[in-house]
Amino acid sequence: MSAGELEYIRWLRQQTPSDPRVLLGPGDDAAALQMSSERPLVVASDMLLEGSCFLLAEAGAELVGRKALAVNLSDVAAMAAEPVAAFVNIGLPRQSGRRLAEDLYRGMRKLADRFQTAIAGGDTNSWDGPLVLSVTIVGQATDRGLVQRSGARPGDWLFVTGPLGGSIRGKHLTFEPRVEEAIQLHRLVDLHAMIDISDGLARDVYHLCSESGCGAVLRAQAIPVSSAAKEIHDQRSPLEHALYDGEDFELAFAVAPSDGQWLVENQPIEGLHLFHIGQFETEGFWLQQDERRTPLEPLGYEHRLG
Amino acid sequence: MSAGELEYIRWLRQQTPSDPRVLLGPGDDAAALQMSSERPLVVASDMLLEGSCFLLAEAGAELVGRKALAVNLSDVAAMAAEPVAAFVNIGLPRQSGRRLAEDLYRGMRKLADRFQTAIAGGDTNSWDGPLVLSVTIVGQATDRGLVQRSGARPGDWLFVTGPLGGSIRGKHLTFEPRVEEAIQLHRLVDLHAMIDISDGLARDVYHLCSESGCGAVLRAQAIPVSSAAKEIHDQRSPLEHALYDGEDFELAFAVAPSDGQWLVENQPIEGLHLFHIGQFETEGFWLQQDERRTPLEPLGYEHRLG
Repeated sequence: MSAGELEYIRWLRQQTPSDPRVLLGPGDDAAALQMSSERPLVVASDMLLEGSCFLLAEAGAELVGRKALAVNLSDVAAMAAEPVAAFVNIGLPRQSGRRLAEDLYRGMRKLADRFQTAIAGGDTNSWDGPLVLSVTIVGQATDRGLVQRSGARPGDWLFVTGPLGGSIRGKHLTFEPRVEEAIQLHRLVDLHAMIDISDGLARDVYHLCSESGCGAVLRAQAIPVSSAAKEIHDQRSPLEHALYDGEDFELAFAVAPSDGQWLVENQPIEGLHLFHIGQFETEGFWLQQDERRTPLEPLGYEHRLG
Repeated sequence: MSAGELEYIRWLRQQTPSDPRVLLGPGDDAAALQMSSERPLVVASDMLLEGSCFLLAEAGAELVGRKALAVNLSDVAAMAAEPVAAFVNIGLPRQSGRRLAEDLYRGMRKLADRFQTAIAGGDTNSWDGPLVLSVTIVGQATDRGLVQRSGARPGDWLFVTGPLGGSIRGKHLTFEPRVEEAIQLHRLVDLHAMIDISDGLARDVYHLCSESGCGAVLRAQAIPVSSAAKEIHDQRSPLEHALYDGEDFELAFAVAPSDGQWLVENQPIEGLHLFHIGQFETEGFWLQQDERRTPLEPLGYEHRLG
């Protein structure tokens, strides 16, 4: 640990509001958390790489820091769990230094405060490489238990929590992780399966299907297309952007038809419209336009190993 | 998630032995763990950057993977806690790919098995940058509680768990994290404060002092110098290597004199010699050679932000 890091840790400690769940924050060999019960622990961990997951010059450091935290909060949301603490590792390009580290941290801090998530530890190094951020969030299931990807059943209704497509025009940096909404939904109905849409609607619903051992049909007319997707003029239609673009970070979930009916009629989550976009079936993966079904390819945003 | 990542996750799942503590491993939005009680959770998180923390061509991928896990296990050891699960994020240079990912994983797997640590999740991406690994380990305090850096008191004896210096000649890649030894020690005596030596003996004992609000004197003749340190012929003496080199990953700890006396006389940890190398004092930071005290500079290995 260098003098610079000691000073940075001092700064971090000053920035960090005390939290009864954090027994020990930055500055020891490890952080210590006191969880409130024996409810299962949830751990989400994601790495953001400059040039591949963000462009620093375009996005600015605060939004990059925000995104590194937000993608993990979105994963916690997809389990219908509560975030507790975040651990942030940063590799800084050698010529940058303290200012960049502080701006990244500020972007995280704002979102962390909004979601009652303590930034409880991590590690900041400089190196001869581009900017890299790795965030791990520890959370906890509510007393309703966790929602996995694997519980969808044929006949279940498929929902999404918001308009899709074109997130590259801004939403991939500024989206609000659906943490509270997921917990509220899980209190109101029995969520059979859930995922956050990071790889694109088609691909992520396909993940739900393969983990659940079933198929699905998506109704083209019911899929909410974002205004950003409509404004993109390229070889893809707005619907294709909604189906295949990545990083919407809305939730897709499965519920029994009776619960689905109730959600549609009551729209019980304040500030959130729930879109019923299809059904799960025993097999196959389809897009239905008017009366015609065509096979849907589980294509999507490939931002990872491959 | 790409086809490549799906296949990699399938491979990971096959490699991953089932573990009753892991409710949900790789492949969902987040992992889920069932902890055994309300004992405090411990979270260690560290990032290893190519060119700065390791040289891939020199070390080989297996030892790099091993080190990424081992440095975090060492942090868990320094709290006298038990590791439970590891989360591994990897940024792969684009031209490398699957083979490198597997070799890194294999190095981790062996160590993880030895320390009953499940590899329960993570994220593997490729990018136009050097290799980067970020590992987070979730562990749990034993019923003896956690050992922090802040509990050393004037009069306490200072111990280290092994010879120091020259780790660059190999030990920084092959060291055994002192997980079991720390837990055994903590059962036998009241550990007031503990740290793992990653930044060098002088600097890390100084961290114990500043967190505990006290000083210390180190006895030069008592400091165990590794044979690797003795074989280095440069401008530094072997003792200086033992004092200032980094990444020994031995533990330095503080106990009451009566416990210290008992440890010296009984050497109760099988396969481990405990070296009594100094005392904590009310203030100051000293090296004592024969009868002469000189101020000790808390210099050390600067591998981080600064």
